[in-house]
Amino acid sequence: MIITLKKETPQQEINKIIAQLETNGFKVVDIVNDGVHILGVLGETSFLEEQNIGANHWVASVTRITAPYKKASREFHPQDTIVDVNGIKIGGKEKIVIIGGPCSVESKEQIMDIAEGVALAGAKMLRGGAYKHRTSPYAFQGLESTGIAYLVAAKQKFKLPIVSEITTIDKMEEFVANVDVIQVGARNMQNIELLKALGKINKPVLLKRGLSSTVEEWLMSAEYILAAGNSQVILCERGIRTFEKATRNTLDLSVIPLIKKMSHLPIIVDPSHATGHWELVEAMSLAAIAAGADGLLIEVHNNPQNALSDGQQSLKLKNFAALIDNGRKIARVIGRDI
Amino acid sequence: MIITLKKETPQQEINKIIAQLETNGFKVVDIVNDGVHILGVLGETSFLEEQNIGANHWVASVTRITAPYKKASREFHPQDTIVDVNGIKIGGKEKIVIIGGPCSVESKEQIMDIAEGVALAGAKMLRGGAYKHRTSPYAFQGLESTGIAYLVAAKQKFKLPIVSEITTIDKMEEFVANVDVIQVGARNMQNIELLKALGKINKPVLLKRGLSSTVEEWLMSAEYILAAGNSQVILCERGIRTFEKATRNTLDLSVIPLIKKMSHLPIIVDPSHATGHWELVEAMSLAAIAAGADGLLIEVHNNPQNALSDGQQSLKLKNFAALIDNGRKIARVIGRDI
Amino acid sequence: MIITLKKETPQQEINKIIAQLETNGFKVVDIVNDGVHILGVLGETSFLEEQNIGANHWVASVTRITAPYKKASREFHPQDTIVDVNGIKIGGKEKIVIIGGPCSVESKEQIMDIAEGVALAGAKMLRGGAYKHRTSPYAFQGLESTGIAYLVAAKQKFKLPIVSEITTIDKMEEFVANVDVIQVGARNMQNIELLKALGKINKPVLLKRGLSSTVEEWLMSAEYILAAGNSQVILCERGIRTFEKATRNTLDLSVIPLIKKMSHLPIIVDPSHATGHWELVEAMSLAAIAAGADGLLIEVHNNPQNALSDGQQSLKLKNFAALIDNGRKIARVIGRDI
Amino acid sequence: MIITLKKETPQQEINKIIAQLETNGFKVVDIVNDGVHILGVLGETSFLEEQNIGANHWVASVTRITAPYKKASREFHPQDTIVDVNGIKIGGKEKIVIIGGPCSVESKEQIMDIAEGVALAGAKMLRGGAYKHRTSPYAFQGLESTGIAYLVAAKQKFKLPIVSEITTIDKMEEFVANVDVIQVGARNMQNIELLKALGKINKPVLLKRGLSSTVEEWLMSAEYILAAGNSQVILCERGIRTFEKATRNTLDLSVIPLIKKMSHLPIIVDPSHATGHWELVEAMSLAAIAAGADGLLIEVHNNPQNALSDGQQSLKLKNFAALIDNGRKIARVIGRDI
Repeated sequence: MIITLKKETPQQEINKIIAQLETNGFKVVDIVNDGVHILGVLGETSFLEEQNIGANHWVASVTRITAPYKKASREFHPQDTIVDVNGIKIGGKEKIVIIGGPCSVESKEQIMDIAEGVALAGAKMLRGGAYKHRTSPYAFQGLESTGIAYLVAAKQKFKLPIVSEITTIDKMEEFVANVDVIQVGARNMQNIELLKALGKINKPVLLKRGLSSTVEEWLMSAEYILAAGNSQVILCERGIRTFEKATRNTLDLSVIPLIKKMSHLPIIVDPSHATGHWELVEAMSLAAIAAGADGLLIEVHNNPQNALSDGQQSLKLKNFAALIDNGRKIARVIGRDI
Repeated sequence: MIITLKKETPQQEINKIIAQLETNGFKVVDIVNDGVHILGVLGETSFLEEQNIGANHWVASVTRITAPYKKASREFHPQDTIVDVNGIKIGGKEKIVIIGGPCSVESKEQIMDIAEGVALAGAKMLRGGAYKHRTSPYAFQGLESTGIAYLVAAKQKFKLPIVSEITTIDKMEEFVANVDVIQVGARNMQNIELLKALGKINKPVLLKRGLSSTVEEWLMSAEYILAAGNSQVILCERGIRTFEKATRNTLDLSVIPLIKKMSHLPIIVDPSHATGHWELVEAMSLAAIAAGADGLLIEVHNNPQNALSDGQQSLKLKNFAALIDNGRKIARVIGRDI
Repeated sequence: MIITLKKETPQQEINKIIAQLETNGFKVVDIVNDGVHILGVLGETSFLEEQNIGANHWVASVTRITAPYKKASREFHPQDTIVDVNGIKIGGKEKIVIIGGPCSVESKEQIMDIAEGVALAGAKMLRGGAYKHRTSPYAFQGLESTGIAYLVAAKQKFKLPIVSEITTIDKMEEFVANVDVIQVGARNMQNIELLKALGKINKPVLLKRGLSSTVEEWLMSAEYILAAGNSQVILCERGIRTFEKATRNTLDLSVIPLIKKMSHLPIIVDPSHATGHWELVEAMSLAAIAAGADGLLIEVHNNPQNALSDGQQSLKLKNFAALIDNGRKIARVIGRDI
Repeated sequence: MIITLKKETPQQEINKIIAQLETNGFKVVDIVNDGVHILGVLGETSFLEEQNIGANHWVASVTRITAPYKKASREFHPQDTIVDVNGIKIGGKEKIVIIGGPCSVESKEQIMDIAEGVALAGAKMLRGGAYKHRTSPYAFQGLESTGIAYLVAAKQKFKLPIVSEITTIDKMEEFVANVDVIQVGARNMQNIELLKALGKINKPVLLKRGLSSTVEEWLMSAEYILAAGNSQVILCERGIRTFEKATRNTLDLSVIPLIKKMSHLPIIVDPSHATGHWELVEAMSLAAIAAGADGLLIEVHNNPQNALSDGQQSLKLKNFAALIDNGRKIARVIGRDI
């Protein structure tokens, strides 16, 4: 950590700051540049907070040099983490995992129908929302426990592990008992209590990036789960909020090679929520695979125009099958497969 | 709601779309402009979702004309809502309410000391965090129940109602029993389950705007609380996330007159989190008052450089007192007071 | 265009607004929904400005239904525009065109060396900046005319058409005489006088997207060039400005399929400026090809760490050659080639 | 400047980097933290570019400690710059200067009428656009030289210095001869050639902040003008582009106290372009004054609904007069005046 002091700081205040840091176990190097003192603070600075050091009125700026996360960083853990979901592996050089299904579970028939379709198309897991987080209190809020039960029925019949989103801690038991990958939605990426609870279970967690979360914050949220003891975290890029409104969000594919550099965790992409338009989903899926994504999370519906949520971004089954075929060819070019 | 169809849409598909809307109780006006059909949909469209209508592949675009919130809108409720907190009124033409206190409750001495200081300076309520939502798992996470107990002790001694942030539903009982205004933090603005639970209690709720939430989404979150039966909602602007990094966030003061136009709910401002620098807090506080804010939520610390969180943005007590004095003069110019 | 009036608008004001629109040649359909008048304005509304209609104090909102650009829209011009640069074709189903070269021309040796390298690697055009637009007045500002002369020498020797950025209108003659594709930088995307001047020449123009420009604004800038008579416009996505600082900008690849839907113009991608890190360039290049880009503009340097500008994002020649080889395989998967 | 090297950097590479910096006249302090070399670079680092240092593949990150601008910084020039426009002073503790007028000059009658009105209301300068920068090629592009002539006529009759926007260098002579404050619009904030040319004249320049420009970039643009010899620069905040669309832009008032800290240049605010809605202009004007702005640039029209540009954000004369009256009271509270 680098602390730059204001030019007018008296020597006695400089001494006090250095002494306080040394008392806390840090080594301090004091560099003077044109009358300005720059303090290099050495040691385990991930526990120091910029905001508090900056509270000293003699401090001009505080700059962190090392990442504030540890367990999520590649430096701490150089080899790729490969998450195993009932035998399906995600990460490293494993096959790219395609997860398909509707935004919301709407009925048993609907989820059975879609599950059969995505399995035939080549998907390896089934997604479906049972507890929904909707912007409007007047929108469909999900089938809740009934939806989970329908997902379990589909899982048993079509041998597809299931991914579903948890929205509150009090459903943890239900999710651990029934769901194979527990999804944390973008709006809950910094629901700290939920992250802590997910750190204590032994189930893969799919952690979506928050709408306006930096990569560092995203890895800090993963760190909450890892630090509490659960190492099975899959990151999921789903678009960030920008000034551009022609797409629902702006899909940030550059995080794929970036995360691979910074972290050992697998990263998948949700092009459906990111773009908000089914017509853009295939192009963005192929791009994600070419960029090195470990998987895709795609909305598929047997009847998008009567979907109870997010129909506009859902693919029909035949388009989903075509996407997988094309994606497989791209995957093979870069030395992987689907 | 206005639905624009693609130019090539066959007449029979147009008829189907119109029939479906009419079956759902809407009236449809079909306008043809240069071969393009534009459907005006009349009726209670706040229950219609753009995403689902857009799922029809013949639909080019969907535009909402009326606000998707009802109870939060000024049209629905033209007179100002005035929230009463143990006799202190917020909103309308009432006095501007100053709420001061530390980011985190750190010890009994600390909160007692600060409470006495803010009361003397002219604050009408005391803020303090007991359950903290920190980006890093390695940061101080709050004194929890002990912190609430210390706040209650300060409240009793200095006659200041207390404001504190709730982070999970399972603490609701503790908050209802002890806290006077329950704060929802920016990261929880769309924690839908929490909003629903807050709608069922009879306590004022201070709803912070999410880091990247639009005004419409913010009012939709208020709508969740109002729709569930609790009408005591205070909105709080605390800065949004933008590309600018010279301030912690970008304080969006234009929402003050905008919210006054769109909604009847009171709106206050938190210049401390918004700017992240104590040196900018007074200027932004005076600006907020001049723009019509109903209150201010300000971080104050008796010893900012040893604060356990957010010291850099905390005012010392004497600066806080000066801010109130100057703010009072501005308030009087615009026909209010502190 | 849809004009929604305020509920309290008197009938006589409604009549005045309608009469004024009709006088200007528009047809107006007046729909009443729950007491609110919604006016559908039919005709050539691309010449109407929302801001001016919104100035009427009885107007609640104005919504544009049809795109404000004409010549740039696919509706106006359904077949793909293919730009021909000395026999090299960009757009449609043509081969993907790779353009490589340094950020700045630094010396004759440097540009000759790089030109030879990019030609050998398979690039079809050479890029290089002679007039530079730098944020700092203290940074290297380019070799200017000498730089253009060096580019021309490289072009003649290696048979590579050249791409270079124009920064002021008064250099137009020099650019038309010497450069094969005239680049408009992101900071000049809305330099209207420059766009108008480029509309009057007969040379391909490479129009970069502004740092915070919407797709609609970008197409409006293309419209300036097209409307003035020059139909040879190539769009170039180079990253937008967002809150994320781990990459220099956020590369928005979803604009590739989006532009293909909205417009007939070719679109290429600059992954070097977008990411700002050479280590992310190959992954983003492959992703761009997979998403359907018509070309790539890539920074290549023979000695990146001694580059006079933007060295951090420049590829070495051998990495550039590898990128083209891998890109070609992706291109073939999607039915194209390099 | 702080350069952090990758952990695996060989000692010989470290030596090379240090030697190269020392050859260029810098002093280098090498700090080792947990095996990582952190180089503190001392000397005039404003001429060093992060991008080029980062091009060395052993460099992990580069952090600038001192501002890259000199002449615009308060450190370089501690006393406030006060710009004198024909005797009207802007900056320091001078009176707050109100500049009013239409977005575009439309006719002699219009500008005379508005000039009279704004003078009576208490404005000290007249604004009006003659050369317009419009997003659409089909929008009104300004009266050009005729517009300047009308402004000059208004200036002579009502003794109001005039502010107008320059859009290309080739009009410089006309502007220097006729206009009292030459405005650089947001889209031209980084039109470097224009900035250099403005540095060579002896006239005040009003430099608007770019739509997505950081405070640092804005000061770097001012630096171009100052470095070329013109010290009369007035900064103007006019809103930045964010995800929020309920206002035209997001007015960032926190830059007022921030600029006062970082720089000696005067700063004024344009609440009309920032909000885009006349109903929000007064509240934001009062807020800007309370925050310490040195002036306001406000759109006023005698007939907003027939304005040829930006009518929605224009105030009527009587509202403008009320704004000045209320603004004066706020100004006096903070020890200034209008």
